[in-house]
Amino acid sequence: MPKSPAERPLAALMAPDILDLLEEAPSTIAAETEELHPADLAEVAELIPRDKVKALLAALPKERAADVLEYLDEELRTEFLEEIPTAQAAALVSQMTPDDRTDVLEEMDEQVAEEIVSELPKEAREETERLLQHEPNTAGGLMTTEFVSVSADLQVDEALEAVRALARSGRREATYNIYATDREGRLAGVLSLRELLAAPPGAKISDVAWTEVVSVSPNADRQEVARTTATYDLIAVPVVSESGHIMGVVTVDDVIDVLEDVQTEDIQKLGGMEALDEPYISIRFWPMIKKRGGWLTALFFGEMLTATAMSHFEGEIAHAVVLALFVPLIISSGGNSGSQATSLIIRALALREISLHDWWKVALRELPSGLALGALLGLVGITRILVWQATGWYNYGAHYWLIAFTVGLALVGVVTFGTLAGSMLPFLLKRFGFDPASASAPFVATLVDVTGLIIYFTVALLILRGTLL
Amino acid sequence: MPKSPAERPLAALMAPDILDLLEEAPSTIAAETEELHPADLAEVAELIPRDKVKALLAALPKERAADVLEYLDEELRTEFLEEIPTAQAAALVSQMTPDDRTDVLEEMDEQVAEEIVSELPKEAREETERLLQHEPNTAGGLMTTEFVSVSADLQVDEALEAVRALARSGRREATYNIYATDREGRLAGVLSLRELLAAPPGAKISDVAWTEVVSVSPNADRQEVARTTATYDLIAVPVVSESGHIMGVVTVDDVIDVLEDVQTEDIQKLGGMEALDEPYISIRFWPMIKKRGGWLTALFFGEMLTATAMSHFEGEIAHAVVLALFVPLIISSGGNSGSQATSLIIRALALREISLHDWWKVALRELPSGLALGALLGLVGITRILVWQATGWYNYGAHYWLIAFTVGLALVGVVTFGTLAGSMLPFLLKRFGFDPASASAPFVATLVDVTGLIIYFTVALLILRGTLL
Repeated sequence: MPKSPAERPLAALMAPDILDLLEEAPSTIAAETEELHPADLAEVAELIPRDKVKALLAALPKERAADVLEYLDEELRTEFLEEIPTAQAAALVSQMTPDDRTDVLEEMDEQVAEEIVSELPKEAREETERLLQHEPNTAGGLMTTEFVSVSADLQVDEALEAVRALARSGRREATYNIYATDREGRLAGVLSLRELLAAPPGAKISDVAWTEVVSVSPNADRQEVARTTATYDLIAVPVVSESGHIMGVVTVDDVIDVLEDVQTEDIQKLGGMEALDEPYISIRFWPMIKKRGGWLTALFFGEMLTATAMSHFEGEIAHAVVLALFVPLIISSGGNSGSQATSLIIRALALREISLHDWWKVALRELPSGLALGALLGLVGITRILVWQATGWYNYGAHYWLIAFTVGLALVGVVTFGTLAGSMLPFLLKRFGFDPASASAPFVATLVDVTGLIIYFTVALLILRGTLL
Repeated sequence: MPKSPAERPLAALMAPDILDLLEEAPSTIAAETEELHPADLAEVAELIPRDKVKALLAALPKERAADVLEYLDEELRTEFLEEIPTAQAAALVSQMTPDDRTDVLEEMDEQVAEEIVSELPKEAREETERLLQHEPNTAGGLMTTEFVSVSADLQVDEALEAVRALARSGRREATYNIYATDREGRLAGVLSLRELLAAPPGAKISDVAWTEVVSVSPNADRQEVARTTATYDLIAVPVVSESGHIMGVVTVDDVIDVLEDVQTEDIQKLGGMEALDEPYISIRFWPMIKKRGGWLTALFFGEMLTATAMSHFEGEIAHAVVLALFVPLIISSGGNSGSQATSLIIRALALREISLHDWWKVALRELPSGLALGALLGLVGITRILVWQATGWYNYGAHYWLIAFTVGLALVGVVTFGTLAGSMLPFLLKRFGFDPASASAPFVATLVDVTGLIIYFTVALLILRGTLL
């Protein structure tokens, strides 16, 4: 679904009212939007009838059309590229930067994508085939191969001329940084375009470049690429082979996409479901139900253990029905404290504030946290019962003090257990190679519910035996 | 706590082993790390004894020391700046970029910060005071005032000379983009440094600049800044006043910090707590307990309603204790489906896939989703009871079919309600000006628990009246 213009972060100050354009002929739209950011023009394309989109893209210069395609809604783009003649599609995608071209082709029907690749000019074809071999979620899968590298022996003004020539050639190299290579072609330094401009013309590149280059390996996970970019405030991070040769660069715009993707996945996992991998608004009904239902069913199977646990205490409940009244309160307190601890630890692990072997430090911190939080809730719980008894809102009988004490002590136990379990679960998941973010609130709650019941009724047996039980 | 080197995304390929340096004298460390990224040198500073840090920073050239300070752990940096003489601190922070300088000063004790500002050179002082007036979480609070703007009438080669002169002056302008201004000084165009290099020397800036400039207002929320940067793949976004004048630019590295911050906050809120605003590992114990305990207690008060709801059905439980066995299973299913729906909608709202007035579209989608998911879990629940009855693992008595039917129907109702409530809650929160991410899993679960109990026992009354009840 296209976003409503009112909600979009449009360059409202400068942009003409896009809505006025929607009724125009495609060629008029193309002519009147020459200066518009391609993302905005893509938005226009999403708002006009689908049959007009083809005419609009045809009316644009090829490079411009390729730019707009990059920003177009995935579904619409794939549909368009699969509809037009293969040669035409190849001509369009050949204008894209290599990394975006790869992304676009990966979304398409494999056979159609292969046909398009086969029609690409030789150089672009080989490059694309090389890039397609990398896993999409690695540095190699994210990188573009168009970057500027010069020999470290070059003089500054020669290097600047080389950069200018490249810029004029119309290819869209990532020129924010200039990479210097040694005589064996290995990455030996980096300098920003600003530093190149500031350097004295007679100097050699090796005199002005930074020799410690922050880089990633082609197999680095996309989260590591994002982390590196964030830590070092980079605009682009070079991808370097084991032999020290630069294979490509990942630019910061792709890093931002990674961060947003990962965040979406994390939040969906934390919410207790498989990551949708598609926008909520465009995913079809049944695939969504499948992804949500799968997790819900799994959690339900786990939660069925509560029925089993409860049945073991059926006699106690029959004797003292009052015990049943506090079951939801007690188990949810365990679940809540577990969710808190889990989300704290998941995030601290993701930001590398803590690492796997810090688990015992966290445990040593969460144990007193759990006890303190449990004591807090326990006191509130006891007060609740005493107040209800005193005001006559409910009559817990002669042993109301014992009942209050049972609930209070059970809360201390359940919250402490919930906090500890919730904080250790992400470590366990990470240790065994799973994503810690899978330790969702519902997952923790399920784990804690069963244990919480057992803790509660055990405390009740200890305290109430001989009186109510 | 310093991260362990093994876990850090170090430029492992090129960097010397940092650990070897830690034993050296500060001056040796300074000399041997000349080429190291300041983020890595800051890491070194965090690993050596605190009293050596001062000597290390003193041994560095001022600009380099300022760079390292920018990356240093907040607490350590504040401590250091508050300890050294004010004039020295002022000399250091004056070397920082204006946006980082503002960030650093905002973290410090207000009085010390004011003293440092008063010692800054006039120009830097006025600029800093101006920047400090903006809210930290707005475009104005994030922007730097060092950017390159030229008159649109300038010729390309003159503009390039101006950029070179600026770059050589040692000031750290954000030079990725060149902003063109009209005769009234209003922002009239933008071009990248690459485009400037590629332009024919005789051309005027106005011939080659893009006239539709994506920008934000100084009061724009940081999330809007991030969203704009992400949507348009920007390296920097200009901050433009109502009169059309450019006030500064927000660079992409700060946008990445915003994205990470927001993600941390979102995840902590989703986990059911106030955002910590500090790393888990460095926040002190009691402030953390306060932030966690506050939410837990609030949720506990909400959850106390379950005890009240249960007490209304005490008679039913006493008659049919078997009903109590399924209480945790049923209410947790409602909570789980609610958490799912909530996290989906929170994320879709944050990404602007949907907006506030789409609530009814979401409701129309979540109603059948809830029914489908409820039917799924209901069937599993009925099967569970029938299997236990058939195998003899538990005897539900003569009316086991009615009990199974009660549980199944209650699940449909509870899951549908949970899904609907979970999906609508973020809209409600947003409508009333709250952050939708506050609709945490525990919050939804609490909401759904009470209603779930009422649904369950109402279904039970309808189906079991005359038999068990």
